[in-house]
Amino acid sequence: MFEFELLAQDGQARAGRLITPHGVIETPSFIPVGTLASVKALSTKDLLKIGTQVIIANTYHLHLQPGEDLIAQMGGLHRFMGWDGPLMTDSGGFQIFSHGAGREEDVGKIALPSPEQEDRGGHFSAKKRRRLVEVDEDGVEFISYLDGSRHRFTAERVIEIEQKLGADIILVLDECTSPLHDYRYTKAAMDRTHRWAVRALDFFQKSSRGDQAIFGIVQGGTYQDLRRESALFISGLGFDGYAIGGALGKSKREFYQVLEWTAPFLPEHKPRHLLGIGEIEDIFEIIERGIDLFDCVTPTRMARTGTLLVRGAERFRLNLLNARFKTDHRPIEEGCNCYTCINHTRAYLRHLFLARELLGMHLAAIHNLYFIESLVRRIRNAIKGGRLRNLKREWLEKQQ
Amino acid sequence: MFEFELLAQDGQARAGRLITPHGVIETPSFIPVGTLASVKALSTKDLLKIGTQVIIANTYHLHLQPGEDLIAQMGGLHRFMGWDGPLMTDSGGFQIFSHGAGREEDVGKIALPSPEQEDRGGHFSAKKRRRLVEVDEDGVEFISYLDGSRHRFTAERVIEIEQKLGADIILVLDECTSPLHDYRYTKAAMDRTHRWAVRALDFFQKSSRGDQAIFGIVQGGTYQDLRRESALFISGLGFDGYAIGGALGKSKREFYQVLEWTAPFLPEHKPRHLLGIGEIEDIFEIIERGIDLFDCVTPTRMARTGTLLVRGAERFRLNLLNARFKTDHRPIEEGCNCYTCINHTRAYLRHLFLARELLGMHLAAIHNLYFIESLVRRIRNAIKGGRLRNLKREWLEKQQ
Repeated sequence: MFEFELLAQDGQARAGRLITPHGVIETPSFIPVGTLASVKALSTKDLLKIGTQVIIANTYHLHLQPGEDLIAQMGGLHRFMGWDGPLMTDSGGFQIFSHGAGREEDVGKIALPSPEQEDRGGHFSAKKRRRLVEVDEDGVEFISYLDGSRHRFTAERVIEIEQKLGADIILVLDECTSPLHDYRYTKAAMDRTHRWAVRALDFFQKSSRGDQAIFGIVQGGTYQDLRRESALFISGLGFDGYAIGGALGKSKREFYQVLEWTAPFLPEHKPRHLLGIGEIEDIFEIIERGIDLFDCVTPTRMARTGTLLVRGAERFRLNLLNARFKTDHRPIEEGCNCYTCINHTRAYLRHLFLARELLGMHLAAIHNLYFIESLVRRIRNAIKGGRLRNLKREWLEKQQ
Repeated sequence: MFEFELLAQDGQARAGRLITPHGVIETPSFIPVGTLASVKALSTKDLLKIGTQVIIANTYHLHLQPGEDLIAQMGGLHRFMGWDGPLMTDSGGFQIFSHGAGREEDVGKIALPSPEQEDRGGHFSAKKRRRLVEVDEDGVEFISYLDGSRHRFTAERVIEIEQKLGADIILVLDECTSPLHDYRYTKAAMDRTHRWAVRALDFFQKSSRGDQAIFGIVQGGTYQDLRRESALFISGLGFDGYAIGGALGKSKREFYQVLEWTAPFLPEHKPRHLLGIGEIEDIFEIIERGIDLFDCVTPTRMARTGTLLVRGAERFRLNLLNARFKTDHRPIEEGCNCYTCINHTRAYLRHLFLARELLGMHLAAIHNLYFIESLVRRIRNAIKGGRLRNLKREWLEKQQ
């Protein structure tokens, strides 16, 4: 039911096909995030029109709300959310990090404050906050952010939950470390993640009905030897695919380097997923370093604040709230074929955001996801035609 | 460019066709409210699929944000919002009321607290609040709720704004009174509304390019002689259609009576619009009393709080947040052909509302508007077939 074919290679970049019981994913592929069984402000019909191939939901969030048993009773995640295409579930490792060390230290996957973190205004406080999570050898104990109830995830329990959810591709539980963690802690967490991976795969192999694929997760922070060790260890276990998780450094440069330290040690004929990354300026870089799948909340989150993806804008971002768009008759992006660009002007979208009309978020989300889908489709074709370098130059030059 | 044909009558109920430069409205017709040039949470594509025939936007709100000049620069309201079908603009008379006497006395069109007003919880305070509006002979002075800026509407100015907006059908400025106003004040306000109507029509006739129709508004509160007087006076001016506005009493009974005191004195061969009313339980009653058009925010507002329109539920309302829908596999309404019902379960919608996912509001708005469109379509057919009484009995019996 699962197969990954490599169709073409251009440098380290790969074009392929990942076959799942709910359809084929042409890779490289961006994966919109549907944390709570919904890609924010979009229906599954909208996603199909946009060209979305696969959605990633979140085991941690769905466990807390509405619960995996309810979803299983409703026929599984596909039927529950009305999405008949390929589905993944992330394990919750990152959420455990962000409510644990991430919360305590006020950092994300990349440690220096990114513009997003600054954008969030007062959302994150600089002072240390109590962690909601405790990690031990067996797993993770955490407190629900919804109602304060106590929960426990272990390597096996997470697989069990993901089996109830029933996505096509599931991820093992990992411990995601912070870029601020030292070598010693990062190594200890990585070793624990490895032991969890062994247990998770073992549990999966005993209980799977064959309709799900399982991906392992590489950790090791920003340490070259740990990334290499983790890639080799996790690869040796024989998962259906491999995700790269955890701390990605203190700069884009370090982040790309982490990929270079990791990807070459992953099996060539298995898909590689970079967790939680997908800003436009990163897409060429990560695909050039051998990534096949990547998910990110940024495009849909930006859409909700009136930031639209456009070629030619700084960091590909147009802030629609800017007064210069007041009477701008142009679509968000000239030449774009998304529903929003075909039917609406920048001036109208700007008005919707200023008036806090929900339609603004909906239309912006359509455009942002369409923008990424179109770019990634072009990248796939460029890889097949050996033209990836040219496409990248064209995109990054226009950016100047 | 404008024509109203009566096709059939069943008692006082009428089925007709209102022809506008942007298409035909089959009447009776419900009119979704797009206050700020957007029907909340729905795209124009969604509205077309739902079967929406016409949208009503609001002159008062659009004047404050983004302003009629900006909309004119963008090619008018149709192009601005991407809606190529018939459009109306309300004059702002009701907003002036609700920010004036309505705000001061804490009342709506119907004075006794309706379940909606109770639902709103603390939104309206019982104590008297400062009015933001002052009415004089020439017009209305008001303070923007957005930025405190002062604005002035006169009979002529409102027409001028509506000409810039460019809807197919525009409404004159009126003074909407409260059900708590006494006879004396109600009569004075009605007389002023009449003088404004004369001025508005005069201004319109001198300045119209022939692509807009203008509706007069009948006032007179809950006083039989005033309603009759107003209907006759406004009818005598020769508008393209007639709206019934203002205070509608202290109970449904009184509200229906106001219609009986008014509609018979309106010209038979012109369309009649009841402003701001459209709850399901009222629809049969108002159509039976000769109403052709009615607009209401309730269906879209309810959708945003998880209240869904369903036949068989009390007052046709299903509160999806109720725990009994937790694992309900049924669509919102069995047999309904809307996008939401075809694709999603009650359990999923309930989850979306509990998780505060925007998609919930979108899917609920689709269903609620589709529900009304379908009901009104059936009513149109029943009038044509002389079966309105039967349809009403069937609907209200199933309701028990």
